[in-house]
Amino acid sequence: MSEAPAKNDNALEEIRALWGESQTLASAAALLAWDQETYMPASAGPARAEQSALLARLVHERRTAPRVGELLDRLDDENAAGETGGIDDRETTRSIARELRRDHERAVSLPSSLVADLARAGSIAQDAWKHARANNDFAAFAPHLGAVLSLTREKARCLKRDGQEEIYDALLDEYEPDTTGADIDAVFGPLRERLAAIVDRARSSGTRPDTSVLDRPVPEDTQHDFGLFVLRACGFDLDAGRLDVTTHPFCEGLAPGDTRLTTRYKGDRWSDALYGTLHEMGHGLYEQGLPKADHWGTPLAESVSLGIHESQSRLWENLVGRSGAFWAWALPHLARRYGEAFTDASVETLTRAVNTVEPSLIRVEADEGTYNLHVMIRYELERSLIREDLSIGDLPGAWNERYRDLLGIEVPDDRRGCLQDVHWSFGLVGYFPTYTLGNLYASQLWEAMGRSIDLPAAVAAGEFGPLLAWLREHIHAHGRRYSAAQLCERATGEPLSAEPLLRHLDAVVRESYNA
Amino acid sequence: MSEAPAKNDNALEEIRALWGESQTLASAAALLAWDQETYMPASAGPARAEQSALLARLVHERRTAPRVGELLDRLDDENAAGETGGIDDRETTRSIARELRRDHERAVSLPSSLVADLARAGSIAQDAWKHARANNDFAAFAPHLGAVLSLTREKARCLKRDGQEEIYDALLDEYEPDTTGADIDAVFGPLRERLAAIVDRARSSGTRPDTSVLDRPVPEDTQHDFGLFVLRACGFDLDAGRLDVTTHPFCEGLAPGDTRLTTRYKGDRWSDALYGTLHEMGHGLYEQGLPKADHWGTPLAESVSLGIHESQSRLWENLVGRSGAFWAWALPHLARRYGEAFTDASVETLTRAVNTVEPSLIRVEADEGTYNLHVMIRYELERSLIREDLSIGDLPGAWNERYRDLLGIEVPDDRRGCLQDVHWSFGLVGYFPTYTLGNLYASQLWEAMGRSIDLPAAVAAGEFGPLLAWLREHIHAHGRRYSAAQLCERATGEPLSAEPLLRHLDAVVRESYNA
Repeated sequence: MSEAPAKNDNALEEIRALWGESQTLASAAALLAWDQETYMPASAGPARAEQSALLARLVHERRTAPRVGELLDRLDDENAAGETGGIDDRETTRSIARELRRDHERAVSLPSSLVADLARAGSIAQDAWKHARANNDFAAFAPHLGAVLSLTREKARCLKRDGQEEIYDALLDEYEPDTTGADIDAVFGPLRERLAAIVDRARSSGTRPDTSVLDRPVPEDTQHDFGLFVLRACGFDLDAGRLDVTTHPFCEGLAPGDTRLTTRYKGDRWSDALYGTLHEMGHGLYEQGLPKADHWGTPLAESVSLGIHESQSRLWENLVGRSGAFWAWALPHLARRYGEAFTDASVETLTRAVNTVEPSLIRVEADEGTYNLHVMIRYELERSLIREDLSIGDLPGAWNERYRDLLGIEVPDDRRGCLQDVHWSFGLVGYFPTYTLGNLYASQLWEAMGRSIDLPAAVAAGEFGPLLAWLREHIHAHGRRYSAAQLCERATGEPLSAEPLLRHLDAVVRESYNA
Repeated sequence: MSEAPAKNDNALEEIRALWGESQTLASAAALLAWDQETYMPASAGPARAEQSALLARLVHERRTAPRVGELLDRLDDENAAGETGGIDDRETTRSIARELRRDHERAVSLPSSLVADLARAGSIAQDAWKHARANNDFAAFAPHLGAVLSLTREKARCLKRDGQEEIYDALLDEYEPDTTGADIDAVFGPLRERLAAIVDRARSSGTRPDTSVLDRPVPEDTQHDFGLFVLRACGFDLDAGRLDVTTHPFCEGLAPGDTRLTTRYKGDRWSDALYGTLHEMGHGLYEQGLPKADHWGTPLAESVSLGIHESQSRLWENLVGRSGAFWAWALPHLARRYGEAFTDASVETLTRAVNTVEPSLIRVEADEGTYNLHVMIRYELERSLIREDLSIGDLPGAWNERYRDLLGIEVPDDRRGCLQDVHWSFGLVGYFPTYTLGNLYASQLWEAMGRSIDLPAAVAAGEFGPLLAWLREHIHAHGRRYSAAQLCERATGEPLSAEPLLRHLDAVVRESYNA
């Protein structure tokens, strides 16, 4: 990388060098974004917006370079003629070419100025969101959201392809390739009713798990130490990653050997940070498992879709972390760190406490039963915002109305309402539905994994290695070689289905509520 | 910055946009460097080296663009014809053009590949240094140092101009413009003897200040809180900056609104971190005082030389921070935070304790009297290394020999010997002598400042505002408008002289040692 990539007789090598440069710049941009969320001084906002905009433009210039198109054509010709290496090599080259073409064509359809404007507006709006959320001041955020949504609509219009009914589909396609709003509707429609029925069963059971054990105060440092212990135990490599504190937890797999998780601590609800950490760890294990050593700079080193990414986080957070087996292993370690207050806690009480199904205000802290209802509300609202069926001024009212209708709760303020999530401030629209896809994938993968591993026994023994190895083999190692749908079929033997998630939630409610 | 800088009828505007892009990229690179020292996971080293190398190349491409040369020629023509604005504007434009030409010409003389290779080798060697230092393993570091020095020599050969006797001068010129090794020799020669005499006076006085108050254990968190308190009191804007922990303390003024300091804590010598923090704060106040709001992207927003930069850090660290007046103000605040152990400490004891003059091993922890001797050792050694009069394998021996000769102490291991400083690992050669220039400038500025401000009274009252305002007006506000020598004459009425430093050290030894 010391010199600008030179022309090369080997099209694959040249395109790897060219594209690799865009990835290296993107990884520097990712560090800027991580820093903005973690350690950046408040007054650095404007300078950071310029840095981010410039890097976004430079990444975009490289991805849209005409030479990339020429090389992709050459690669296709070579592949068609069977000129490159053995069968495995040809298959690899074909995958790289296919996915690079997708990325190149999407990039080419976006004007450079729009990419930079979105990066800058997103950087500024994200700062505005942080302050607006802290001050419960939606009005202060509204114009920034307006600017970002307007640029996002412009982006969607540029990206929209034949076969996509509305511009929202073009946004969704960025996060979950080849998925449309109609596909989401087809999944969410029936799921919504069956989820509501499960939540109702819990609500009308007359029982309520005792959650007082979760409210015992634990100092942040102690929570952090336990979080690190769990990360290590599950196989997250802390020499190639970190755990920091942010307003909104996230995972950034920013470069080979550099996967950063964040969480947030509440003194009076230690389980929030623990499950937040387990969640981001799931993302982080995927990032650490991607074949970056061999394929960095190409799509093969990247995650295939956000739905699959989310399946990894939800699997560790919920299917591992909320199981009785997990607490059978974790409780003694927890009690040793969190002190005497926890020595009387039982595995059963704890497991029930973390499996409460109860409508609540905050998505990232929501239980498994209601979580997808939070997602559905955002999906509907963002689609309406993009269609301009809903104005920004009406967003808080619409938000609160849906929480009343679907979850049966009153939103007391925007901080705990439509200001709670960072996504829209960045222009991440079409992103939320992938959370529910992730939950579906997670349960289906878990059932498949259970056919070859005695999961309760492994988890109860703290032997997470076989689980991680299974995920590495069936999901992580492939990067973008297969589509999300193909990956699911290869790993589980079936196309994606809602049944495993519903079976899982049914069991949760049965066990926690005897209902 | 959303679009590539367009051609513009206004040469000044166009060059500001063009050059500004290189500065924005350089500021992103500075964040990568800061992160590498603070929070980067160990395994991210190779990826970070690639990111740094790529950004260095992109910065260099912009600084060497032929268009920059054309625009500079046009600016010179316009300036000669008196075409631009009023006298102040013309003066400003002329300064910008003069300094940009210097930077452009230096950049043009360096091949792009060398710049990237140095950035990469430096990034890798810095990691190697960190491990070698921790493990006291010079042999593990030697090949990395060899690679960096060889590239640095190549760089010096490219940069060497007429009038420079040896390639070392070309390196020195980067940090202290228009200064040669012969200039440094002329200053260091006589200074060395007079410093040695002062150190001898302290040594042979028969007294030794009681430093036990510095050894009382203070937890790191408490030290950190006190450091932040002092930063605020002195006027460092923490909304536009940070304080973190690193192996080697530094200050990075990485962008407008973003000046980051680091320090390191020792549980058994709290004063090390405090003076380290005051030192970096001096650099940070300069960075925050540079006219970045008006001139970011041009040399006017940049520090003029490292000697002047260091004068700011040494002024706050030594002339403010080691004075009796400082402790008259600081001691009650310290005692309130550090606890009962400090309520019996007296201002006089503390002041004497922090003004010990005694040969020691570590430069950054050295007292004012011996500090410049540490610098002289490094200066001699690095000049010999560049001249290839000294081989890398012989470095530890030569280091230890000089410590024996000049400071009269035995170096017990390389960790506390030639592995203690990070500079050479980055290729920062020609940098050390600026530390002593900084000490000279600091004392001279302090005397000048004392002619208009009652310094002891202001400091004892914790009123640092007038000091900072004086520095802002006479130093910070000018950026690179004047040379270091001009700035010194304008601010103090005299060319740089060693006398103020010697007068100051003479007083220190008299007061602390009655000698």
